[in-house]
This record gives sequence, C-alpha cells and structure tokens, in this order.
Amino acid sequence: MAGEKPENDTGSDPLQEANAPSSQCVRFGVDQALPLDAGGTLGPWQIAYETYGTLNADKSNAVLICHALTGDQYVASTNPITGKSGWWGLMVGPGKPIDTDKYFVICSNVLGGCLGTTGPASTNPETGKPYGLTMPVVTIRDMVRAQARLVDHLGIDTLFAIAGGSMGGMQVLQWAASYPERVFSAIPIAAGARHSSQNIAFHEVGRQAIMADPNWSGGDYISQGLRPTKGLAVARMAAHITYMSDESLHRKFGRNLQDRESLTFGFDADFQIESYLRHQGMTFVDRFDANSYLYVTRAMDYFDLAKEFGSLPRAFQGSKTRFCMMSFTSDWLFPTPESKAVVKALNAAAANVSFVEVESDRGHDAFLLDVPEMFSTIRGFVTGAAAARGIPAPGGGR
Amino acid sequence: MAGEKPENDTGSDPLQEANAPSSQCVRFGVDQALPLDAGGTLGPWQIAYETYGTLNADKSNAVLICHALTGDQYVASTNPITGKSGWWGLMVGPGKPIDTDKYFVICSNVLGGCLGTTGPASTNPETGKPYGLTMPVVTIRDMVRAQARLVDHLGIDTLFAIAGGSMGGMQVLQWAASYPERVFSAIPIAAGARHSSQNIAFHEVGRQAIMADPNWSGGDYISQGLRPTKGLAVARMAAHITYMSDESLHRKFGRNLQDRESLTFGFDADFQIESYLRHQGMTFVDRFDANSYLYVTRAMDYFDLAKEFGSLPRAFQGSKTRFCMMSFTSDWLFPTPESKAVVKALNAAAANVSFVEVESDRGHDAFLLDVPEMFSTIRGFVTGAAAARGIPAPGGGR
Repeated sequence: MAGEKPENDTGSDPLQEANAPSSQCVRFGVDQALPLDAGGTLGPWQIAYETYGTLNADKSNAVLICHALTGDQYVASTNPITGKSGWWGLMVGPGKPIDTDKYFVICSNVLGGCLGTTGPASTNPETGKPYGLTMPVVTIRDMVRAQARLVDHLGIDTLFAIAGGSMGGMQVLQWAASYPERVFSAIPIAAGARHSSQNIAFHEVGRQAIMADPNWSGGDYISQGLRPTKGLAVARMAAHITYMSDESLHRKFGRNLQDRESLTFGFDADFQIESYLRHQGMTFVDRFDANSYLYVTRAMDYFDLAKEFGSLPRAFQGSKTRFCMMSFTSDWLFPTPESKAVVKALNAAAANVSFVEVESDRGHDAFLLDVPEMFSTIRGFVTGAAAARGIPAPGGGR
Repeated sequence: MAGEKPENDTGSDPLQEANAPSSQCVRFGVDQALPLDAGGTLGPWQIAYETYGTLNADKSNAVLICHALTGDQYVASTNPITGKSGWWGLMVGPGKPIDTDKYFVICSNVLGGCLGTTGPASTNPETGKPYGLTMPVVTIRDMVRAQARLVDHLGIDTLFAIAGGSMGGMQVLQWAASYPERVFSAIPIAAGARHSSQNIAFHEVGRQAIMADPNWSGGDYISQGLRPTKGLAVARMAAHITYMSDESLHRKFGRNLQDRESLTFGFDADFQIESYLRHQGMTFVDRFDANSYLYVTRAMDYFDLAKEFGSLPRAFQGSKTRFCMMSFTSDWLFPTPESKAVVKALNAAAANVSFVEVESDRGHDAFLLDVPEMFSTIRGFVTGAAAARGIPAPGGGR
C-alpha cells in the first residue's frame, strides 16, 4: 500500500481544513501562547469555530457546545468535508431545545483536532511542516483553556450554558470545575468524571491499530504523502461497536446477510453488521486525521477530575452552576454509575443538580439520535435556567 | 517491517506443530476425506489430540473436552510452544471435577486450528505449501464432525460427557444436536446457540486488523517468510477486552499507572491496562497462526443452531442427553439471556436440563478461572450423571 493517496474526492481538502478552515477562526500569536498541562506553551495557535444566533446586548445568552471525539465545530451547519448537515441539528437550531432564535451558540473544534484548531495535522510555524507527533499531548483541560480564550475573544464573561455529550460532557464538567463563575448552567450528557479502564483499553486498541499501519510512518505520513487509512479504519470500527448497544445491533442487523441469500464460506462481508462496520471505517478516514485520533483519545484517557482536585466533590466545591446530568440505560461506554458518581459528588458539594437516566436501547450514541425524552428534558432545563438567569422568553421572533 | 521473522525463540516451532504436533495425531487418507459444510471434502486430513486417564472396558467413561477460539488440545498438559500447563487444569485432572482418575478425557485441536489438526497453516499435500486461504472455510459442525471421526477411531460409541466453554460450548451444543445418541451428558459453559451481531462485529474488527497488515500478504505470509504479527496483536487486544468485565478491569487495573509516577504526555503505555493489553497481543502472536484466527472466528460467526434446524427446540427434539448449562453474571460476550434461550429451547423439547447462572465479576473468561461455584456445580452434575450412567464411583485408585 506504499504511496497510497487520500481518497477524499468530494468537498474540501482535510489537510487544508486543518490550517485554513471553512469556518470562523481566531489566531493567537506567540504573545498569547496557550499554557499546556504537558508543560510549556503552544503558540502561535488557532481555534476554529462556528456561531449561530445573536449575542444579546448584555452578553447573557451565550451557549457553548462541546463536541465529542470525532465531532467538529459544525454542530448545526454543514461540514465542508463530508457535506453532511450539523451533527446535533436535532438539539441546536431555531425552535430546537437549544434555540438559536434565543441563544447565541458557539461551537469550536477541540485543541488537537483536525478541522482548523491547532492539532497534529496543522503546520508547525517553526518548521513549515505538519506537527505530527511533535505536537504536545493535550488534555481536556487544555481544550477547555483554549475555549475560554475564544470566549474571552468574543467578549463574553459568563456562559449561560455549556452542553455536550461523551467527550463533550467531559469538557462541560471541566469547564464547571475550572471556571465555575463563568458557567451559569451545565449539561453533561453520556459522560463521566474520568475515563474507565475499559474505555482506555478500547482507545489503546485503536491507537495500536493506527501505529501498526506502516503508512503511519512514525506520525510523519502527511509529509511523506501517505495516509494510514487501514489502521485508522480498524480503530474506527472497534470504537464504533462501543457506541452502540448489543440490543440495537441485534435490532438493526441481527444475523442478517448483506445482499446475499446464503453464507459464502469466505471472508467477505457476509453479514450486514460486517458491511456496516467496514463502511463506518472507510468513510471515517476521509474526514479525520489519524494523529488527531491519537491525540484526542489520549486526552480522554488522561481525564480524571477526582485526581486533578484531590476528590470529585472538591472539583465542584462552592459551585453555583445549575447542572443537568444525563445518562442512557443502554450506554455501556459511559454507563449510568459513572454519571451517578458525578451527581453524588455534586450533591456532596451542595451543588444544584438534576439527574435524568433516559430509557433508550441505542447505546452511547443515543445522545446524537432522535431521543424525545432527552430533548424534552433539556428543553425544560434550559427554559428554567433562562428564567433564573433573566433571559427573556422566546417569541420575540428571529 | 518487511522481512519480519517469527519471534518465537522458546519451545517448539509453531509451523512445525501445525503439521507434526507434539501431541497424538490421527491421519485420515483421501479415502476418509471429511465432508464440509462449505461443500466438497477435505482429505487427507489429520486431527491432533491428547488423552488423560484410562478408557474402561465397556468404553463408557469417555469425556470430550472442546476448546475455545485460541485454545488447544493441551487441556491438562503442557503446551509445547508456550511451555504453560494445561488451560483447564483446574477442571480436568486427578481429583478434579472432571476426574481423570475416573474418566478417559479426550481433547482435540479444532479443525482450522494451528496445533496439529488440519488448518490454514498445514501443508496442502497437493502443493507442498501451506494452505493459507486455499483451505476451505470450516464451521462448528465441521469441527464436531472431525471430532466424531476421532471418537470413532478410538472405538468409542457414546461419550459419557462433553464439556467446553465459549466456542467449546458451541461445539458441545452442536454435538448434542448432531449426534444426540452419542452424548450422554453435555456441559456447555458461557456459550449460546448462535453468535450475536455484536460478537460478529468484534470478530470482524480482528479479521480486518489482520488483513490490514501488509505482512499478511493475502494470507500467503508463511510461504513468503513473513508474519502479520502487528495485525494479529491488535486483533487479540480487541478480543481480549471482551473476555473481561468492566468491573474486573476496574478492580485489576483501574487507572493505575505502569511503572511510573505520573502521566508522560506521550503514547507509551502509561496505564497498566495498556501495558497488559500490549503484552497480551505480543505473546499471542508467538503461539497462534493469523489465518487460523480468521478461520476459527469465521466458524463462530457462522454458528446458528436455530437456522440449521429451523428452530432451536427442533435442534434438541427427542434428546435424551442430560444438559448442564452455565453462564456468568458479568459475561457480556455470551450474556445469560443467550444461555437462557438455549435452556428455554431444551425445555420446549422436553430435554433434561439444569441451568446455573454463576455470580462472578470476571467476565467471559470466568470459565477458565478459579470460580468455586462453577467447579462444585460441575462436580455435582458429573457425579450424578455417572451414577445414572452406571459408572463406578471414584475411589478405586488411579
């Protein structure tokens, strides 16, 4: 497979998006370098983002959406590479639970990502070549620190709400812990205050799959005109299984065969689930950078709020933030006990917290899907928080 | 990694074991070719096996043990490649629940395996080269058919008992369905009558990891002096996670760091779970053939007794076999409902069935571990079955 070229034939070039994104982007100079948990600073650096709706006069209606592992800033607009509509269009938009007729919604690409915020696919200004593994390893706290700089840049002091699922939920919790006075309300979904041993294990399999691909070339594949697509596809396939539940796989695919009447006694994709997984792997490599996958999974693995603060209640001590924590019954990646541990700590810290375990058989990915109880709960919570914050009720027109 | 050589420095050569095993082995000629579910026959072919204890005069005390995906015939003796003692030494041996002082125990390497029974690493007599992918795809029923030939060869009509966990349990169920009159009692553990969509998904990830390794060379790596060790290691790592439970991973590893005081902000194995998984992957490749991994996982994926017989109860209609079915509370690969579906079908077929769900937090691999309730249950069941069969009680000395 030596000499294999990226297969992205449609839309924007992923490598171009890493440096010159189609979205908005703020660039910070060396004088505004970002301190990192790894030690040292990163600068110059940039953060790519999208906004929706209008910031009101007293800047009290800003909502930050935090994306998951392979998400992006296009929460409610079209991804320039895939051409697909926003990944949380059911949650964010005019009349949606997070109503862009009422709120000013910000969503940025995470630090270490590949859609325009500085990450391993970005050009290192010192060398003129992609960072690759010379990019420092970043943490969830670093991602949040970068977002805080963006929020500063936008002139916003306090965010009305921060919401996100999975790694997005980790960022929500980190925000509430690091900048409690800047977070009026927080909505962590399908998340936890740490990455579990099993979750680290699955990420490690993905990383090993990528690094086992000879095209990965020690992380220097972009300079060499290569792409470790096979390794990255395997990583995505393994991860994708963890995003669904056994029940949903059974309901969706069962043991159904793919475009054939009987078993072929070979190693083709006889079963629909095989074909589906292969498709997931193959399409993923067109939109995501393999090194970014290493960096962002590492950030999740490193996440452990209890360790950072000495104990989980201490992370939220004195918090005035209103929390709405949500889990899904069939999510085995961030099962309900992980959410409950956070809720318990919030209660121990005398914080204001609602907790809802939503009945769903759709596994971890339920937060991205059409799950009515999730929408009604969040709509209710946000409306209540808006009243408490004194943001006028919707209806003033777009 | 081109030109990478097998790293097996100790013990026997895996490639030699595939053709000339250290264990006993029966060779069948073309005139005794084995019919396969894929169509056609396989012959000449061979089956490698170990025996323990003594067959009694009326040949009524034979027990067949069926091994799991990466198991072997060395159930209670030393594996010649790894130098490790038998994989089920806690279950099979003098004074053990399956007591070799009383029973004649047989354990054979499965068809498609790599420890001496014909599989893709075996030499194709027509070409003088390893089969590789020219070996026909085999099924659990083919494996059982091969075992029945071995049992015939040993002059045994009826097996007193057949026992096995995971894929071994699938074989037990297949035996009971295919040859009901030859199975006095059956002990399927941590198994089911089909492979689920999620299980197929994990196997497909493993196969894709192997086939993504350039050293795999379309399955022809042995002839080329190569070994797809990286791909096979990734496959093993992914599978290994499914053999443990979230609880056991948390208890055993948690978020503990490996030989270091703090995070390194790199991609080394910072966490114990990462180091453990890498070790599992690296040691596995020294003892197992990558193509065998493709074939044996495929056999498991294809397993579906209800489909074979039209319905699951029909698979056991009129059966006089005594069944002892066992599951483990924390096994998410073959969760209790999969066992219960078999028990329900056995009841619908008016078969004689005991079912025990053993409380254990050790996941699927519990069947290989020191789980006292499993041993006491099986000891009790086997003793009762021996009385019913009229096999003298133990105590007559070895």
